Amino acid sequence: MYNAPFLKELIRSSLEEDIGTGDITTMTVIDGNTVAYGTYTAKEDGVVFGLWIAGMVFSELDPDVEFRPLVSEGDSVRAGDVIATVKGNARSVLSGERVGLNFMQHLSGIATRTRKAVDAVRGTGVRIADTRKTTPGMRALEKMAVKAGGGSNHRFNLADGIMIKDNHIVAAGGIAPAVAAARANAPHTLKIEVEVESESQLEEALNAGADIIMLDNMDIETMRKAVAAVNGRAVTEASGNMGDRDLAEVASTGVDIISIGALTHSVRALDISLKFRIDPERE
Amino acid sequence: MYNAPFLKELIRSSLEEDIGTGDITTMTVIDGNTVAYGTYTAKEDGVVFGLWIAGMVFSELDPDVEFRPLVSEGDSVRAGDVIATVKGNARSVLSGERVGLNFMQHLSGIATRTRKAVDAVRGTGVRIADTRKTTPGMRALEKMAVKAGGGSNHRFNLADGIMIKDNHIVAAGGIAPAVAAARANAPHTLKIEVEVESESQLEEALNAGADIIMLDNMDIETMRKAVAAVNGRAVTEASGNMGDRDLAEVASTGVDIISIGALTHSVRALDISLKFRIDPERE
Amino acid sequence: MYNAPFLKELIRSSLEEDIGTGDITTMTVIDGNTVAYGTYTAKEDGVVFGLWIAGMVFSELDPDVEFRPLVSEGDSVRAGDVIATVKGNARSVLSGERVGLNFMQHLSGIATRTRKAVDAVRGTGVRIADTRKTTPGMRALEKMAVKAGGGSNHRFNLADGIMIKDNHIVAAGGIAPAVAAARANAPHTLKIEVEVESESQLEEALNAGADIIMLDNMDIETMRKAVAAVNGRAVTEASGNMGDRDLAEVASTGVDIISIGALTHSVRALDISLKFRIDPERE
Amino acid sequence: MYNAPFLKELIRSSLEEDIGTGDITTMTVIDGNTVAYGTYTAKEDGVVFGLWIAGMVFSELDPDVEFRPLVSEGDSVRAGDVIATVKGNARSVLSGERVGLNFMQHLSGIATRTRKAVDAVRGTGVRIADTRKTTPGMRALEKMAVKAGGGSNHRFNLADGIMIKDNHIVAAGGIAPAVAAARANAPHTLKIEVEVESESQLEEALNAGADIIMLDNMDIETMRKAVAAVNGRAVTEASGNMGDRDLAEVASTGVDIISIGALTHSVRALDISLKFRIDPERE
Amino acid sequence: MYNAPFLKELIRSSLEEDIGTGDITTMTVIDGNTVAYGTYTAKEDGVVFGLWIAGMVFSELDPDVEFRPLVSEGDSVRAGDVIATVKGNARSVLSGERVGLNFMQHLSGIATRTRKAVDAVRGTGVRIADTRKTTPGMRALEKMAVKAGGGSNHRFNLADGIMIKDNHIVAAGGIAPAVAAARANAPHTLKIEVEVESESQLEEALNAGADIIMLDNMDIETMRKAVAAVNGRAVTEASGNMGDRDLAEVASTGVDIISIGALTHSVRALDISLKFRIDPERE
Amino acid sequence: MYNAPFLKELIRSSLEEDIGTGDITTMTVIDGNTVAYGTYTAKEDGVVFGLWIAGMVFSELDPDVEFRPLVSEGDSVRAGDVIATVKGNARSVLSGERVGLNFMQHLSGIATRTRKAVDAVRGTGVRIADTRKTTPGMRALEKMAVKAGGGSNHRFNLADGIMIKDNHIVAAGGIAPAVAAARANAPHTLKIEVEVESESQLEEALNAGADIIMLDNMDIETMRKAVAAVNGRAVTEASGNMGDRDLAEVASTGVDIISIGALTHSVRALDISLKFRIDPERE
Repeated sequence: MYNAPFLKELIRSSLEEDIGTGDITTMTVIDGNTVAYGTYTAKEDGVVFGLWIAGMVFSELDPDVEFRPLVSEGDSVRAGDVIATVKGNARSVLSGERVGLNFMQHLSGIATRTRKAVDAVRGTGVRIADTRKTTPGMRALEKMAVKAGGGSNHRFNLADGIMIKDNHIVAAGGIAPAVAAARANAPHTLKIEVEVESESQLEEALNAGADIIMLDNMDIETMRKAVAAVNGRAVTEASGNMGDRDLAEVASTGVDIISIGALTHSVRALDISLKFRIDPERE
Repeated sequence: MYNAPFLKELIRSSLEEDIGTGDITTMTVIDGNTVAYGTYTAKEDGVVFGLWIAGMVFSELDPDVEFRPLVSEGDSVRAGDVIATVKGNARSVLSGERVGLNFMQHLSGIATRTRKAVDAVRGTGVRIADTRKTTPGMRALEKMAVKAGGGSNHRFNLADGIMIKDNHIVAAGGIAPAVAAARANAPHTLKIEVEVESESQLEEALNAGADIIMLDNMDIETMRKAVAAVNGRAVTEASGNMGDRDLAEVASTGVDIISIGALTHSVRALDISLKFRIDPERE
Repeated sequence: MYNAPFLKELIRSSLEEDIGTGDITTMTVIDGNTVAYGTYTAKEDGVVFGLWIAGMVFSELDPDVEFRPLVSEGDSVRAGDVIATVKGNARSVLSGERVGLNFMQHLSGIATRTRKAVDAVRGTGVRIADTRKTTPGMRALEKMAVKAGGGSNHRFNLADGIMIKDNHIVAAGGIAPAVAAARANAPHTLKIEVEVESESQLEEALNAGADIIMLDNMDIETMRKAVAAVNGRAVTEASGNMGDRDLAEVASTGVDIISIGALTHSVRALDISLKFRIDPERE
Repeated sequence: MYNAPFLKELIRSSLEEDIGTGDITTMTVIDGNTVAYGTYTAKEDGVVFGLWIAGMVFSELDPDVEFRPLVSEGDSVRAGDVIATVKGNARSVLSGERVGLNFMQHLSGIATRTRKAVDAVRGTGVRIADTRKTTPGMRALEKMAVKAGGGSNHRFNLADGIMIKDNHIVAAGGIAPAVAAARANAPHTLKIEVEVESESQLEEALNAGADIIMLDNMDIETMRKAVAAVNGRAVTEASGNMGDRDLAEVASTGVDIISIGALTHSVRALDISLKFRIDPERE
Repeated sequence: MYNAPFLKELIRSSLEEDIGTGDITTMTVIDGNTVAYGTYTAKEDGVVFGLWIAGMVFSELDPDVEFRPLVSEGDSVRAGDVIATVKGNARSVLSGERVGLNFMQHLSGIATRTRKAVDAVRGTGVRIADTRKTTPGMRALEKMAVKAGGGSNHRFNLADGIMIKDNHIVAAGGIAPAVAAARANAPHTLKIEVEVESESQLEEALNAGADIIMLDNMDIETMRKAVAAVNGRAVTEASGNMGDRDLAEVASTGVDIISIGALTHSVRALDISLKFRIDPERE
Repeated sequence: MYNAPFLKELIRSSLEEDIGTGDITTMTVIDGNTVAYGTYTAKEDGVVFGLWIAGMVFSELDPDVEFRPLVSEGDSVRAGDVIATVKGNARSVLSGERVGLNFMQHLSGIATRTRKAVDAVRGTGVRIADTRKTTPGMRALEKMAVKAGGGSNHRFNLADGIMIKDNHIVAAGGIAPAVAAARANAPHTLKIEVEVESESQLEEALNAGADIIMLDNMDIETMRKAVAAVNGRAVTEASGNMGDRDLAEVASTGVDIISIGALTHSVRALDISLKFRIDPERE
């Protein structure tokens, strides 16, 4: 489903981070033949994403562990819902427990917050998008979580989208030369987005042929005028502390996209617990 | 100051994540001789940690960039405070901007929340500690941020502390055999911590010679009794959703340590902005 | 200038590939204090690219080696031109010689062939672009060489451009649904390119709102008609065995871009020699 | 068959290079249950090598993809021959297509050129050998392709053969001391090869006990005399722009080996196409 | 059983170290269909550890090779005992032979020496422990071998135990402030060990609350007095050239632990041979 | 001097192994401004090799640490000799101390044992060589240590030498076809070594044109006869438990080379101590 080699490496290093030179408690206290049966339960309402990573974590540690999700990625769950089970050698399951939960809770937190934002603009046709304000090393997964929550992805990195911001404009001597330089030198497969802060910049950007206009930190009235001025000549994107704004109101301005850094930079983990039944008799 | 090889690798991979095959906007729009002068400003009150990482990010990209922190790691800052400056080749500075900020804002968010918790128990002698509920790949830095905020670190990973939880107890047939197994087989340099949920478990753990008792998810009254029962025979640690508890009240029970997963798993980034002045004339 | 961490790693692994467990000849035959003075000479006419990599190769082996390019990247040179010099410890220089030349000759071969293609369409406004038909592991450098030769880069990889080909069309049940699916689910920063083989497909693609139309393996007359039909509603790109076509003729159809796999998949190395003068007396 | 760990890593990084953060077209346009049936066809005559790598590429992406070669590595094929088939999840197959073809076409190009050189000297007993003038990162595979084409491998890297060239000779103060130094200090399992450019050098090398004599850039007559002078006392190797020489003529001088850098540094990819039939109904 | 990802990486790099660019003898001399049947025999008495690594080595090279241990890890064997068998493709088995043996013989050497030390103090209740004086890169395995031999592990690295030595004491201005600083700043899960060289230091360490006292390089009488002085207030550990001491005598002083660097820094490989029967007819 | 990229990586991973997530003692007990002055002293007679690695270890941790060797690599030292000094930030020096010593003591142990073997055959012209029986991951350094001790290196790995052993002979149907297969298929730069156990095998090997004859596990008389039979037609190498043989006696048979696995597989570390003077006042 996803870029396996990259994820395997991430999971491997996360296990190294958490296990270090060995899970000394489990190795010394738990008999090697014990079997554990575990149940993952949501402790609060939310949107689940990243269960499959817990499965990969166990596979990495011990291919015989059976991890079974009971809901689909992106599903809404209620407090008390059992969302997955795990069964396998108790040492493997105990040693992999925390890493799987750390991924799952963080990503479900992102999916949950994204879903709320999407719900806030439902019916308006506006897309909720993420940004590059992600946790170092976790961007791919965090962007998947945004999708699972119903959001859209903005460019993944500095290579797959052209975004001309204030500093680029100053350095290039204006919006027109900046857009021209990008068009002349960048791959023709990329759209050109320009960040504007005023009406005059907006006009300059449209005249230069910008494909996307980012309306940065504008109040509602200014944004509404800007969207009207664009009048379909470009895609419009509202940005700048959107995590603290009334999204329905922003959507009412007619923008096409609202991008929200807080979706990924200010995440409240979704509370998920894992409880075991241990069977020392078997395996 | 910190484990340089490990950090270099993390920074390198974070840059790869963000830059991908190249910062196409900057490379096509910004002249290679332009110089940028940048100023980092705190946009809200908080505790700063991770400025030095932004410095390392720029060093990795371009050793000639000069990054200068104006406050010390762990300092409290107010909204509007200028906390660092940067100067260098505009391409280098623009391409490294986001990665540095992503580290700095996330870690400052942790330091800020930790400081609040520490302030809540100030004067009681209680230590605020972190947990293993960290973001995969970021544990070392997140734990440094907790220290910078005034907190203490719990064990770093499964190798450097023995923590006997409910599942270990079931599997080993009780607290006494679990503690005995750990003592017989683990390095003698590690303390043995036992998680207890009841008075009888508490007695069993003390009798078994546990060095640390974790009081899991107890109400204030139970906790107070437990601390009295321990009576100095072991270190006591309050745990379980401490992110939502009244910490002063918990501290009043006499526990030695309060460990809080939310310090690292539910982080609100501290808002920090970077503004540039571009000088296309020079270098 | 370029993404340093990535390149360092490539150079390091190339040195490992060539040096293996040690340059046994040099270590046993050359005294450790000998100094070598080397001169790089072009043995045939062409466009040079990749000199700087030879410099990085020596830096990796021995920071005291001085490598000095005498021409600029992308310059045309004539047989007999001295294009760079090197001076340093003879062991370092001899051990790094081959790796540097292997990069330089391969990349200069690409730049040279690109320049010829660019010259063939000069004055028409048509852009010569590369493809993803590159040597595994060398794509970043090969695409730089194309730029140095005067060409343009197509998308770098499967992540930074949407290209809907025949198979995607069949699988999606037509061009219209394929384009709609891409627009709904992909980042809004990416353009949508559609490969068409017939007039009817062309119409369908334009109606679906394709940003770029790839005209695949068409004869001149068909291509000319296609460009006329597009009539500025999209960017047009000629593709398919363009390495064997008369590029001026293709350009005459009015296409915007000609993409040529052979620029990078069928490379004739530019002949460059390195001759030394050895000074056993010094250092 | 070959050094699996090394190859897996190469394939993994080549996939990362081509897929980047995800094949955005395939993921958004192709349904996850679609099955693709593909056919690889040679578009021109040549020698095939590297089919197995395409198989490994698909295995890395998705172990359920079935790749089936229809010819053996090193087989001669004619334009129009179907040489392999592939069947599997359409997303996996489409995402891995290009990397497999890039390897296969490049390596088959090498095998094809080598076969032509081998055919040119067939019956003479002369061996066609490669050099270290390979594409960085691809040496192991390129040398396998040379073998598949019927050629021989020269030393793999600077560690597994002693080759004393002009610069070593100058630095050591002559051929005799250079050979003596190598013999005294290098592992006794390695042969000593000396590059000579004149009759007197040849005598010196033979007297020093060189195991192999490289005749560098000599005309036919000089080479013939040199071979006669050696008279079986050492292996003889003709070298220097052999890619542009009449190999039968060179072979007629009686040399044992002709080494040709162009086999690997100036490769024309063999044209191979992959066409799919998509079945959206199944799996 | 053990931290698989880490070990796979170690085995992979060890194979690369030994195979380099390919086992040229086996590839050129052994037919690809030949089957080898091998028998591992102990050539001297000792304790075996690391057989399973040989199994992992073959798995890495060729999953079809069948490796079967005939004794358990940590078993005592006699000269002449057959301890394992292997069967599989002769190329795979021959190419992996040396790496597996190198691990197995080195680690069995450690287990053997540890067993001797353990036997020397059997019945006294004293534990034999290792140190950080291990072979770079092999610590995890070497410490497993010590356990297999009946020994205990000391701290794994500088992170999972506090050890205050002479230099720390000087720098901190005495034992008391050093212990206080460690207790205030280090995780509360770690014990504090203090190295003492005299009676007064011993008292200071006990008063400071040290959990473990290391008695460094003391003669028997001094050690006996020190143990008496400690009188159960801390764990005692004898250290310093214990590889050359009479361990029974040291044990008689009543110390709890004897740590011996020589267990891992001065290892005599256990002689184990692998003999094959080759069957060229099959597979 | 040596292959820097490879060594840097080894040192980095060795530091990670020893430091783990941080040197908790040093970080909590030693003030960050303290300066340490250290002195390395040999505690027994021996040959020193690997001092430079300690220097690299400190450079990796902290470039400001000054490490100064007082003897040359390969020098004989006496117990009590001061062999190096170090000065720098006390935290850096203390954290890197053990890794540097672990390398230095192990490698000096090898150099010391090699020197003894070389001394035992001094004047006979016989070369003492190592084998592939090395510690996984340490081969390059261990072979350097053998050279420093006055020994010679055998092939580095399976790629840079052809060694036909009993199993290859059986599988190939005799010595003659085995040698023929190797000569036909392996690079012509490698010599062919054949292991023989009897007179008839010896003849067969010589007739097949073996370059080197390994006399495996022969008694003195048989070896003497074998050398006489060879009579200069090939290089002769004595092998098989040479670590336990009287080397002068073996040398007296006239063999050219004696290869000894025990040089690297059964190493007794050379005892070297590092003592510090701490200056808490400065830096």
